[in-house]
Amino acid sequence: MSSIIQGIAASAGIAIAKAFTLQAPNLTVEKRTTTEAASEHTRLDDALAASTVDLEKIKDRALTEFGEEQAAIFQAHLLVLNDPDWISQVKDYVSNEQVNAEFAVQTVSQTFIDLFEAMDNEYMRERAADIRDVTKRVLAHLLGERFVDLTAIDEQVIIVAEDLTPSDTAQLNKDFVQGFTTDIGGRTSHSAILARTLEIPAVVGTKEATTIKHGDTVIVDGLAGQVIVNPTEAEIATYREKQTQYSAQKAEWAKLAHESSQSADGHHVELAANIGTPEDITAVLEYGGEGVGLYRTEFLYMGRDALPTEEEQFEAYKVVLEKMDGKPVVVRTLDIGGDKELPYLPLPHEMNPFLGYRAIRLCLDEQTIFRTQLRALLRASVYGNLKVMFPMIATVNEFRQAKAVLLDVKAELQQEGIKVSETIEIGMMVEIPSSAVMADIFAKEVDFFSIGTNDLIQYTMAADRMNERVSYLYQPYNPAILKLVQMVIDAAHKEGKWAGMCGEMAGDEVALPILLGLGLDEFSMSATSILRARSQLKQLSREQTQAAIAEIMTMATADEVEAYVREHFMTK
Amino acid sequence: MSSIIQGIAASAGIAIAKAFTLQAPNLTVEKRTTTEAASEHTRLDDALAASTVDLEKIKDRALTEFGEEQAAIFQAHLLVLNDPDWISQVKDYVSNEQVNAEFAVQTVSQTFIDLFEAMDNEYMRERAADIRDVTKRVLAHLLGERFVDLTAIDEQVIIVAEDLTPSDTAQLNKDFVQGFTTDIGGRTSHSAILARTLEIPAVVGTKEATTIKHGDTVIVDGLAGQVIVNPTEAEIATYREKQTQYSAQKAEWAKLAHESSQSADGHHVELAANIGTPEDITAVLEYGGEGVGLYRTEFLYMGRDALPTEEEQFEAYKVVLEKMDGKPVVVRTLDIGGDKELPYLPLPHEMNPFLGYRAIRLCLDEQTIFRTQLRALLRASVYGNLKVMFPMIATVNEFRQAKAVLLDVKAELQQEGIKVSETIEIGMMVEIPSSAVMADIFAKEVDFFSIGTNDLIQYTMAADRMNERVSYLYQPYNPAILKLVQMVIDAAHKEGKWAGMCGEMAGDEVALPILLGLGLDEFSMSATSILRARSQLKQLSREQTQAAIAEIMTMATADEVEAYVREHFMTK
Repeated sequence: MSSIIQGIAASAGIAIAKAFTLQAPNLTVEKRTTTEAASEHTRLDDALAASTVDLEKIKDRALTEFGEEQAAIFQAHLLVLNDPDWISQVKDYVSNEQVNAEFAVQTVSQTFIDLFEAMDNEYMRERAADIRDVTKRVLAHLLGERFVDLTAIDEQVIIVAEDLTPSDTAQLNKDFVQGFTTDIGGRTSHSAILARTLEIPAVVGTKEATTIKHGDTVIVDGLAGQVIVNPTEAEIATYREKQTQYSAQKAEWAKLAHESSQSADGHHVELAANIGTPEDITAVLEYGGEGVGLYRTEFLYMGRDALPTEEEQFEAYKVVLEKMDGKPVVVRTLDIGGDKELPYLPLPHEMNPFLGYRAIRLCLDEQTIFRTQLRALLRASVYGNLKVMFPMIATVNEFRQAKAVLLDVKAELQQEGIKVSETIEIGMMVEIPSSAVMADIFAKEVDFFSIGTNDLIQYTMAADRMNERVSYLYQPYNPAILKLVQMVIDAAHKEGKWAGMCGEMAGDEVALPILLGLGLDEFSMSATSILRARSQLKQLSREQTQAAIAEIMTMATADEVEAYVREHFMTK
Repeated sequence: MSSIIQGIAASAGIAIAKAFTLQAPNLTVEKRTTTEAASEHTRLDDALAASTVDLEKIKDRALTEFGEEQAAIFQAHLLVLNDPDWISQVKDYVSNEQVNAEFAVQTVSQTFIDLFEAMDNEYMRERAADIRDVTKRVLAHLLGERFVDLTAIDEQVIIVAEDLTPSDTAQLNKDFVQGFTTDIGGRTSHSAILARTLEIPAVVGTKEATTIKHGDTVIVDGLAGQVIVNPTEAEIATYREKQTQYSAQKAEWAKLAHESSQSADGHHVELAANIGTPEDITAVLEYGGEGVGLYRTEFLYMGRDALPTEEEQFEAYKVVLEKMDGKPVVVRTLDIGGDKELPYLPLPHEMNPFLGYRAIRLCLDEQTIFRTQLRALLRASVYGNLKVMFPMIATVNEFRQAKAVLLDVKAELQQEGIKVSETIEIGMMVEIPSSAVMADIFAKEVDFFSIGTNDLIQYTMAADRMNERVSYLYQPYNPAILKLVQMVIDAAHKEGKWAGMCGEMAGDEVALPILLGLGLDEFSMSATSILRARSQLKQLSREQTQAAIAEIMTMATADEVEAYVREHFMTK
């Protein structure tokens, strides 16, 4: 008898394979007295060597599959593993206390972990997490335990886990891992976003995925958000059919890569992509992105020990602008702080970092950092179609100040004889409720808006979307959110400006008909969602979606909105 | 030569007196070797006894001046001080290590502090703060240092400090302390609210109050937010005159205690009070409050080690309703979580508690707690004019669920033969942006709204008002806030419901003309602000404030709004 587990459809597609359960190995350490220090030292050296081999392998895979940012995690693990200070302390402990290597590793590591965890600094606390990860790996080798190694998977499987950490997901081999399902997480959790990037079906937040046994046959239906455990032959046949249909659909979508994005009744919108690094442009072009709607510049600042220079930034911005070849590129200035910290820019610990000192608030204070970025951007502006936007604008004064700094930097460059494009648009993120409510005023001063729904939703609902206990309040279809979006779009159009969206909602298929009806001009999403959106758009009548808006805006709940859209504008 | 320090006017009035600077004593401890354990034990016992005397005195003063809640802080300190475990560890340390008592106290306390601080639990971390406070007091006695004791003040002074802690403010003797000024804090900080309750002039957030020397003559102008240091004779004379005028004004206000609250052109509004405990009703009646606009029920749950019983709650609600004698009493159901934790209700640590699991979110989950409170409230309803409101409502579904629980509890009581009032109004706090934006929908389902501006402002601006680095974004006059308030009031009136406000903004004199113009029906504030508000109201023309709204709503910044109101609707 098959059973069905309901969850959240986090990444589209259908996968059928055996379950591979990610279970923690038994790493219980017993203290053993021994005078054979030399032999314990050898055991330790062997375990370290084996762990190094593991980590090198994982790092290489991360690099080829995901790029430098993910690989850096494992580079950090390798540094911890080969820290001479740590190794000599462990060996001394073995010799002096006459104990086994496992016990020494555990004791010494714990001292390091306690030390780092006690520090009032997110970066140091993350180092504690690194040490814990590495220690587990070394202990597994010492204890002869199978340390679940995703890189070792050599048959088609579906990963079943309570949750997937970044280090787990970085090891996923797309050739073998067909899909995954987890107990926790939501559509915007790290693992869900990664699944969409990898185009692996995923169903998250099921609460009971871990009841699945290792080796059970499992169907992950990332379209409907269901997991079928031990399906019958008939069910397997049905889902094979659905899988074929979905593949056919994807092939259809691929044909749209070079078409323009328009509705059935000929209304054109721009389908753009969100990127983090210049390398992401490859996928943007492959999937027919008509622009970059959000270039998150934080990655330039992360995983290093000093601020990037003006020259380094200039090179990155230039590459993106050149590769996009005249298509619009919206660059968001530094959005650091909140949950994103930099080791070389220590910030005070905050009780509510999401309501704290971050993004434009910090940049207006730390003008040296801000001006360096603006110089690099303005210098790069002559290589393409640059649009600059400021994040976390809450008041008109903040926008005026940020724009004044930009214009001052521009004048400074021109005095130095450096050319700057004269057609750069200057806009802002709308991600704080106050700026949505004040959109009519802002619209007179900005060139464009880009609605950042991830933050806008969490502030409007007063719910941290990373917090499992209140994540049910992360409701993109809540009429309150739709009304704010409407206010922003209407305000922009009234002043002859354009409005885009660069949060998760822009790539959501239930949201798309509503956003089309509201008149959104630019939709910026994961590159892999662009073709599906273009296909969906082709089948929608702009006029019909427009006509539905008045009715949608009288609804009381997100559920009503979703049911209405599914009934009227979606085929399934 | 006098000098002037600018700050934030936190509590009205003018005070002239010598500065009493709150400086930390020198508690540097040196390690001394001694074999005289018995004599060190005696020194310790003496210091403990002296500290006990101090704390008993402070606790008694806190009880008479501020009530049980404040006194509980010092009861906790007394428990720490007399903890037999701690005392015996200190004495053992003296004997075993052959050291002086000071060193033993410091070392042992530090172990306790580290232990508690490492715990992932706000309550335990607060215990660490208690131990630190108590340790300082004991060390001061051992070292013969003057531990600044506010209770010992026996002449008229103005307290000058970097900041005032709750334990400092609980010691303020109103007979001698004429006013205070601090370097940090804002209008809504703990010490500012307390100053208004005590009616002591205060200027906070000056950044440089601590440059004032002990014994300097100081004028605290809590009306203009200025501190004049070493004033000239002429300045003293001027301020004595202002002081006299202010006293005269207060005497005028007192005459309004039994008048109704209406504008110059006869528009009536309700001026109500915010309360925390039944004892607060005395001041509400003294200052002519026309109702209780917010009864914060949290205090019933705090400073104890188990949930309050239905009977305890019933008694408290009954007393308040009876004393208010038919005047409206709006009771807010439990708003716990966020920064307010209960020792007996452990909640998971949250990264952003203000965006977390609190208030109605928690009550809908923990229905036993919620139902007990509702039973107590409904049973008390027959003793007065009860209105119930739910805090932190973000979605229509939450309101519907909360109301359904209330109606279910009512049916249950009626089945038990218990009488429940049939005229209880059921409303909600509007303190989350989504509910302000959705006010038109909510208005069809609620009996009333009460706008909680403290939270509404911090969510709308995405800025934690407790966070000094972003507190500049706490802008009650920001047009975004005013527009949301307008949406709520208009939506209520369209459905024939009433709208009140119970945040700090309701008692603000710049906000009052705007709120009158917007048509707010009920203003709930500190009891001590009611008469000033009634006096201000008498001089305002409703019609003129109404006419100004359209113009105010086109403004871009909070500064513009404030300047406009001061020019058109305030005499100074």
